[in-house]
Amino acid sequence: MDPPAVQDYYADEFAWCYGCGRLNPDGWHLRTVWDGDETVTRFMPRSFHTAIPGTVSGGVIASLIDCHGTGSAAAAAIRAQGRQIGDGPSPRYVTAALHVDYLKPTPLGVALEVRGRIKEMKGRKVVVDARLLAHGAVTARGEIVAVRLPEPLHAER
Amino acid sequence: MDPPAVQDYYADEFAWCYGCGRLNPDGWHLRTVWDGDETVTRFMPRSFHTAIPGTVSGGVIASLIDCHGTGSAAAAAIRAQGRQIGDGPSPRYVTAALHVDYLKPTPLGVALEVRGRIKEMKGRKVVVDARLLAHGAVTARGEIVAVRLPEPLHAER
Repeated sequence: MDPPAVQDYYADEFAWCYGCGRLNPDGWHLRTVWDGDETVTRFMPRSFHTAIPGTVSGGVIASLIDCHGTGSAAAAAIRAQGRQIGDGPSPRYVTAALHVDYLKPTPLGVALEVRGRIKEMKGRKVVVDARLLAHGAVTARGEIVAVRLPEPLHAER
Repeated sequence: MDPPAVQDYYADEFAWCYGCGRLNPDGWHLRTVWDGDETVTRFMPRSFHTAIPGTVSGGVIASLIDCHGTGSAAAAAIRAQGRQIGDGPSPRYVTAALHVDYLKPTPLGVALEVRGRIKEMKGRKVVVDARLLAHGAVTARGEIVAVRLPEPLHAER
């Protein structure tokens, strides 16, 4: 069974993101989970998510790293409180800054994995290092700076 | 009449990008044109391109800046040769690095404009500064490092 994902527990009003909102019927429904000390999100690009034919669009890769970064920040905040994903609402982070280095072409037609490590947590800010893997090979590296939103007025789920 | 866009003149085999490939039937068909010394790309996000409701997804913004950056690099290369967009094939650049600072929420429901300035050209590399505007206000800034691909074997169009 899939482990619980951070995005499964966003407050409803924060769950509409195109990349990772569970309530967005047209979105990608990215789900960020822990794997030991790393966070993981998986995604299978569609055939039209092309850059140069046979490779994945840089914008799609940036989108994966973006949503994986905010999800990882929320996962880290939950863990830092001694909590588990799913034992209450997930806090919602948004991206303040995103950086991606495209190291080599990312092949289209394989499931991609974004893995994250928490680099820094300070107040409302979390910095996440991310790497994108295709067939186990790193094809892009990223860093995102995520900032925590205030809780919605009624954050229970 | 619309001025000619860089992407209208990519060689067919390089025209499938999800963001800016004119031949991708499921893509966004971004088009980069000159406006004086700046490059411009316009895009109307769809209702589902959401981040927090009412705002545009960070991944969508990164995608716009990414494709606008490679398009701007090609436009700059054409101008540097004393050529005009459309008087021959456009060279094709890909992204080596992308950085985006999200300055404030980008409202959903308005046409967005990405404007670029060429910061540096050196050999196969072009660095482009970009800013995203909604209702004339800058909501994000970006920088991309674009690298020129070798020409395809039959680049005529």
